[in-house]
Amino acid sequence: MTGTLAIAGLGPGSEAMITPQVRAALDAATDVLGYIPYVARVAPRPGLVLHPSDNRVERERAAHALDLAAQGRRVVLVSSGDPGVFAMAAAVFEVLESGPQAWDDVAIEVLPGITAMLAAAARAGAPLGHDFCAINLSDNLKPWDIIARRLRLAAEADFAMALYNPRSRARPDGLARALELLRTCCGPQRPTLFARAVSTPQEDLRIVSLAQAVPEMADMRTVVIVGSSQTRIVARAAGPLLYTPRSAGGVLA
Amino acid sequence: MTGTLAIAGLGPGSEAMITPQVRAALDAATDVLGYIPYVARVAPRPGLVLHPSDNRVERERAAHALDLAAQGRRVVLVSSGDPGVFAMAAAVFEVLESGPQAWDDVAIEVLPGITAMLAAAARAGAPLGHDFCAINLSDNLKPWDIIARRLRLAAEADFAMALYNPRSRARPDGLARALELLRTCCGPQRPTLFARAVSTPQEDLRIVSLAQAVPEMADMRTVVIVGSSQTRIVARAAGPLLYTPRSAGGVLA
Repeated sequence: MTGTLAIAGLGPGSEAMITPQVRAALDAATDVLGYIPYVARVAPRPGLVLHPSDNRVERERAAHALDLAAQGRRVVLVSSGDPGVFAMAAAVFEVLESGPQAWDDVAIEVLPGITAMLAAAARAGAPLGHDFCAINLSDNLKPWDIIARRLRLAAEADFAMALYNPRSRARPDGLARALELLRTCCGPQRPTLFARAVSTPQEDLRIVSLAQAVPEMADMRTVVIVGSSQTRIVARAAGPLLYTPRSAGGVLA
Repeated sequence: MTGTLAIAGLGPGSEAMITPQVRAALDAATDVLGYIPYVARVAPRPGLVLHPSDNRVERERAAHALDLAAQGRRVVLVSSGDPGVFAMAAAVFEVLESGPQAWDDVAIEVLPGITAMLAAAARAGAPLGHDFCAINLSDNLKPWDIIARRLRLAAEADFAMALYNPRSRARPDGLARALELLRTCCGPQRPTLFARAVSTPQEDLRIVSLAQAVPEMADMRTVVIVGSSQTRIVARAAGPLLYTPRSAGGVLA
């Protein structure tokens, strides 16, 4: 009997942002796999086997999940945020393409979640209210030249930019180089958000200018959002709001 | 007494994708405002006033929501998807900036939701698994030249692209022009997803090449995702999967 594989997004951290369909998949699961801190967010119970693994073994984890499902288990592979954004869904499809025939009949579904940039944007206001892009700074299979070129073209297009994995161990100087490049392309006054561990007890938000932005404001739990030319900071008694107007034409060079 | 304003995302359509925090805000609300079909998704109950409005009155709706909250009401302003992505959060902050002092003390929070591109990507596979951008084709305050330039730069950067509001009444020929431009920039073979009304009974997904893509495949309930140069289609018995590998360097010109 062939089982099922749900690739599910746990959202940014708060239980209150886990969708009911993800909750239902976890409640019905026989096996939950994922990176150690994400599996730690799933409560143990009788009948559920937890399979935490390190963060450098995505392909092995994906293959393990497909194997268990092919054996008839109800498997949930968890990602933080959304599984389709710089996370496990693509890893599963990569191994599936070259995998054994036993995986062909596994029913696979991807259950979306609140990805980090949406949670961060909501806490800060609405910096992604107009056209934007999302760039992964950490991917160590991607040459720096490609990242630099994407950042330059994104600035030229006047996108707001969400920068995922800004400080990875594999590329410790990447964020400093990215910030330097963006200061050149976007000017020093461009509003920038550092949002760490949004919706958790460790949440920390800072809104600064690109001139003030330094790599030490980010770690592995941070997403950085750099505004477009139209992004504005609104002062309020409760703290500043960051937003990009809906009709931002942008000042294209 | 000053009330509260929650700007909440209802997700793409299914109840199973509404986060518990949005559900709790709706359960506690005295007033729910929004575009007619979105307010129709909220169940009436004693003590709750529903305020549906047309889709061309975002600024008036935002001001009305702030007024009600300033009067002490518990107000929820609903958007489909995520309120921070081409939706009501930015509209609220636009009117707030030039609004009366009575609005200063209103506690405002943005509650994120599953935005259309994440729901569509999840149903199709993982086309947003690597760097991507989101572009609103409908904004009639944005000149076509800016849209065309953004599409060209996004293609040059080799982003996957999510195109929101591909067929608006204000710009009926926009999608045809966008598809023509993308065929030139990305080539005719580029995989393209038309995802309509994801997670509702009207859900309809089509994966085609840019050569096959025609504007009639989209309406106001469709999001279009155009892959990057690395996006792949995987044939499965259950139907094709669309995904972008995590390490896609992209073939930059």
